[in-house]
Amino acid sequence: MFQSFAATTSPDQGPPRLAALRAEIAATGLAGFLVPRADAHQGEYVAPRDERLSWLTGFTGSAGFCAVLPGVVGVFIDGRYRLQVRAQVDTAHFTPVHWPETRLEDWLIEELPQGGVVGYDPWLHTSAEITRLEAALRDHQITLRPVGNLVDEIWEDQPDRPAGAALAYPAALAGRTSAEKRAEIATILTEAGEAAAVLTLPDSIAWLLNIRGSDLSHLPVAQGFAVIGAGGHVTLYSDPAKFEGLDPDADITLRDWSDFETDLATLSGPVRVDGATAPHRVRRVLEEAGTAIADGSDPCILPKARKTPAEIAATRSAHLRDGAAMARFLHWFDENAPSGSLTEIDCVCALEGFRAATGALKDISFDTIAGAGPNGAIVHYRVTEDTNAPLLPGQLFLIDSGAQYEDGTTDITRTLPVGMVGAEECTAFTQVLQGMIAIHRARFPKGIAGRDLDALARAPLWAAGRDFDHGTGHGVGVYLSVHEGPQRLARTGLVPLEPGMILSNEPGYYREGAFGIRIENLVVVAEAPDLPGADAARDMLCFETLSFAPIDRRLIDCNLLNRLELDWLNTYHAQVAARIGPLLDGSAAMWLTRATAPL
Amino acid sequence: MFQSFAATTSPDQGPPRLAALRAEIAATGLAGFLVPRADAHQGEYVAPRDERLSWLTGFTGSAGFCAVLPGVVGVFIDGRYRLQVRAQVDTAHFTPVHWPETRLEDWLIEELPQGGVVGYDPWLHTSAEITRLEAALRDHQITLRPVGNLVDEIWEDQPDRPAGAALAYPAALAGRTSAEKRAEIATILTEAGEAAAVLTLPDSIAWLLNIRGSDLSHLPVAQGFAVIGAGGHVTLYSDPAKFEGLDPDADITLRDWSDFETDLATLSGPVRVDGATAPHRVRRVLEEAGTAIADGSDPCILPKARKTPAEIAATRSAHLRDGAAMARFLHWFDENAPSGSLTEIDCVCALEGFRAATGALKDISFDTIAGAGPNGAIVHYRVTEDTNAPLLPGQLFLIDSGAQYEDGTTDITRTLPVGMVGAEECTAFTQVLQGMIAIHRARFPKGIAGRDLDALARAPLWAAGRDFDHGTGHGVGVYLSVHEGPQRLARTGLVPLEPGMILSNEPGYYREGAFGIRIENLVVVAEAPDLPGADAARDMLCFETLSFAPIDRRLIDCNLLNRLELDWLNTYHAQVAARIGPLLDGSAAMWLTRATAPL
Repeated sequence: MFQSFAATTSPDQGPPRLAALRAEIAATGLAGFLVPRADAHQGEYVAPRDERLSWLTGFTGSAGFCAVLPGVVGVFIDGRYRLQVRAQVDTAHFTPVHWPETRLEDWLIEELPQGGVVGYDPWLHTSAEITRLEAALRDHQITLRPVGNLVDEIWEDQPDRPAGAALAYPAALAGRTSAEKRAEIATILTEAGEAAAVLTLPDSIAWLLNIRGSDLSHLPVAQGFAVIGAGGHVTLYSDPAKFEGLDPDADITLRDWSDFETDLATLSGPVRVDGATAPHRVRRVLEEAGTAIADGSDPCILPKARKTPAEIAATRSAHLRDGAAMARFLHWFDENAPSGSLTEIDCVCALEGFRAATGALKDISFDTIAGAGPNGAIVHYRVTEDTNAPLLPGQLFLIDSGAQYEDGTTDITRTLPVGMVGAEECTAFTQVLQGMIAIHRARFPKGIAGRDLDALARAPLWAAGRDFDHGTGHGVGVYLSVHEGPQRLARTGLVPLEPGMILSNEPGYYREGAFGIRIENLVVVAEAPDLPGADAARDMLCFETLSFAPIDRRLIDCNLLNRLELDWLNTYHAQVAARIGPLLDGSAAMWLTRATAPL
Repeated sequence: MFQSFAATTSPDQGPPRLAALRAEIAATGLAGFLVPRADAHQGEYVAPRDERLSWLTGFTGSAGFCAVLPGVVGVFIDGRYRLQVRAQVDTAHFTPVHWPETRLEDWLIEELPQGGVVGYDPWLHTSAEITRLEAALRDHQITLRPVGNLVDEIWEDQPDRPAGAALAYPAALAGRTSAEKRAEIATILTEAGEAAAVLTLPDSIAWLLNIRGSDLSHLPVAQGFAVIGAGGHVTLYSDPAKFEGLDPDADITLRDWSDFETDLATLSGPVRVDGATAPHRVRRVLEEAGTAIADGSDPCILPKARKTPAEIAATRSAHLRDGAAMARFLHWFDENAPSGSLTEIDCVCALEGFRAATGALKDISFDTIAGAGPNGAIVHYRVTEDTNAPLLPGQLFLIDSGAQYEDGTTDITRTLPVGMVGAEECTAFTQVLQGMIAIHRARFPKGIAGRDLDALARAPLWAAGRDFDHGTGHGVGVYLSVHEGPQRLARTGLVPLEPGMILSNEPGYYREGAFGIRIENLVVVAEAPDLPGADAARDMLCFETLSFAPIDRRLIDCNLLNRLELDWLNTYHAQVAARIGPLLDGSAAMWLTRATAPL
């Protein structure tokens, strides 16, 4: 199993560690210290040695941070983790703070009225974050001071950095050689008049060098930093031993982690640094060396988002394999759920089993979200042995999962009835489905950004006075991160959509304490086929569907669908049958025929 | 008639005036001079004395500017005016430049390679504009120099400033006294820590002081500048004689135009200046006096956009009156158009006549756009005696018009068939109608901006590979500007919609050389009524319809409409019949019954 259901922390662990950290803070002459969940790469997944926040507090959520002050310790968590944090931390010592409603700067001003110096590890915070904090604190006699990591000082059995072997990623799957990608980035830098760019995101480096790694769960990257020059040469800073299995390349120099800071100080400028993702320390080293800094986003992000035809073909294959595993799971679910004998963990294990049985599963792309009844309304619910709920007849069951295959990353959500469910659930399910269909059916001109389309997914819910509090979709990589940018179907999605960009399409509806609904397919932006009567001069785009698995017909109220929506659904199900059916046999194949019959 | 169809300029007028201006430029030691269409108030309508661009070049469009250099004179015009400019200017002397595709700064760099000093009148350009230009020109040895207006120097019979009398606007219509508004703005300034704000937009001043004026066509304002202090006191700079008919107010000081600059220099800071709309001279005067400047938008814009219940009630009345005039026009059109005997000008005159017959018409809110057949595809077409086209059977006729009544400003577009039109026109009309209905039917949560809804109006066209190249809607005032901000239904509409904001809803479709379609109603943002099953915690908004006039049923292909769309249309027409019907009699009332019958 790639997913564990054990509680890995306990509220008891926090207080003694906090006492040790406070002693360290005092010894350093500071008033406080910041402990973020982030590592130096600002990713969603961190290595065990970087789990400082959970080690210190017990809180295991995927986002948040802690501010340790003399009188109070704030654990800043967003809406997803309001309940979880109270179960995981000792609230006699740690105070949950609602974030971003309460901003760190305002909280510091409130809690440190006398002013003071707060320490932070400049490798774990971005320049954007530190600059914003410093500006807000300037008038309040509170200063921030970069120091060594005080948690590392007291964490005696802190794990080492991960040392997983890196592997070459076939250019046949990537569609381009690393040399071609490096030439593209070199051109971008040259045209911008920049001498080099610092890369701190492991998935940018993996994409650029056509490598994958095994340092983290769920995200197949090798941790490292890199500098690419305007001539295309790359220096990679990491543990060189991880790359011993790769063919040497004269244009790629391997250096040790410890060389990064010293090498940075010798670079000629202007050096591009992405203030939103690079550690603040990178900027400081360059500034201290007097090197010109060019503010700009990581130059790999946009080229990486534009998938090549080879990547799209590869991910199509991965999605068919994954769709067949999903269909086997849905068939299994239908056979076993109605009796009321399944639990959430049973379902997570079964689904991972069907994926593993493909023989191609490298990892899951994130911990499966599997929520029965009210647990389905917790948007980022992660089942543990403590929360594991039975699937009761009459409930909805929401399962959001994905896989990492060498040829693609998947992410798919289905909402299923346990036996018969009520009309209210079916109405809401159909409204969510209408929004999902609106995105699937969308054609739109070039230049349109995800923000411009987000309302299409919400309008059917809005019409009923409803909404959902997450984006409609996020970018997705190919055997890389299941959450990648810059494209998004959300208010924050301001980048024009371009052919080759992969996005999730996942509207939902959540009734707290009752049920959750989400339906999710991945799509890839494509040139829209010509239509008779269309304006010849307009280049239109559309979404090609990548995910194929039945959408539960028993939850659809056909009276709410218009003809175009019903046509889309029936066409989609015919495609599911045609593409997934040949991968199934026996009772699963027969089940699929029924599950994809026209409505 | 409030609209003239005469050609007011001739290409012949340009060259001798250009020669005189060039002599003046040379005498001042400059390499060139900028002649914008804008006046010091950056409005859509300018007084005759500010028509410098048309006086110099012959070009009468509502936007554009001219750059006079020794070797070339560029007349910068946007896509609306590509054809018109060639008919109006002597292209042997004036070179049309496609703007914004070609930016002024790039053109100057190209045309003045040797560098040089270009003069401009700092009252006619905003700080945002000058700052951007100077930054772009800095590396090219081209400098900008503020000078007196050189066109005014050579324009011997330049008209005087307008001196129309200002009138009090009833607080009963405004819903608030001027004192209440001034107190609100004073609070905004106090909370921002600002000592005063400079107001340069006449409609902001008119709103703030509850006055209307008669200085301009189509926009009932009195030209002037104002300064409001954080204590709420207003100093108004204009021609005091215009305000003699108003009751004196101890908190409003009248000063002459000539006092504005000297008074500005004595202000204590920080003074709020809107860089996007205030003349650059305002900023320079403050800078030269060493006064702290606070960059910020005109503080009246957002409060003005949130219409009071009294304003909404008033504009509802105005729209019913206007809808009855529209219905009379549509009835007249149906009686007269099929024979093929009407021209565009006939229709403009007839419509203005029906509005004038209400006895309440103060002005039209803009020159009526009335385009038959291919003229309908010219988005901002303004008919003149030279272009006046007959309405030929089989054509579509687009008429976009509005009125200024004391109780409200209207703006409505209908597209009508001249006799029988083809199926293609009906298909496109129905697609446009579907987009318009989607906006009318929209419910959406608080926080949503116009940009987020724009796609709803376009999706039906996008689905057919079509689109339109203008925003879906603009803000509208109440007996003020027919185009006001900050709200917009467009990619540029980033301000959250709030109850009381009035917007147009006007999708379109244009086939160059063939036909144009646009359907427009005004709407006002309102709290959405509660729905059963809605999320209790979500505050939802909706659009209340203001405009009531039949939408031509003969152009609608009912097979393309879904049930909800057809329901909306029939409900709307029932409302038109119920609200406008009582204002009509005789054959017009009978016609309305037929025109609003259910489909």
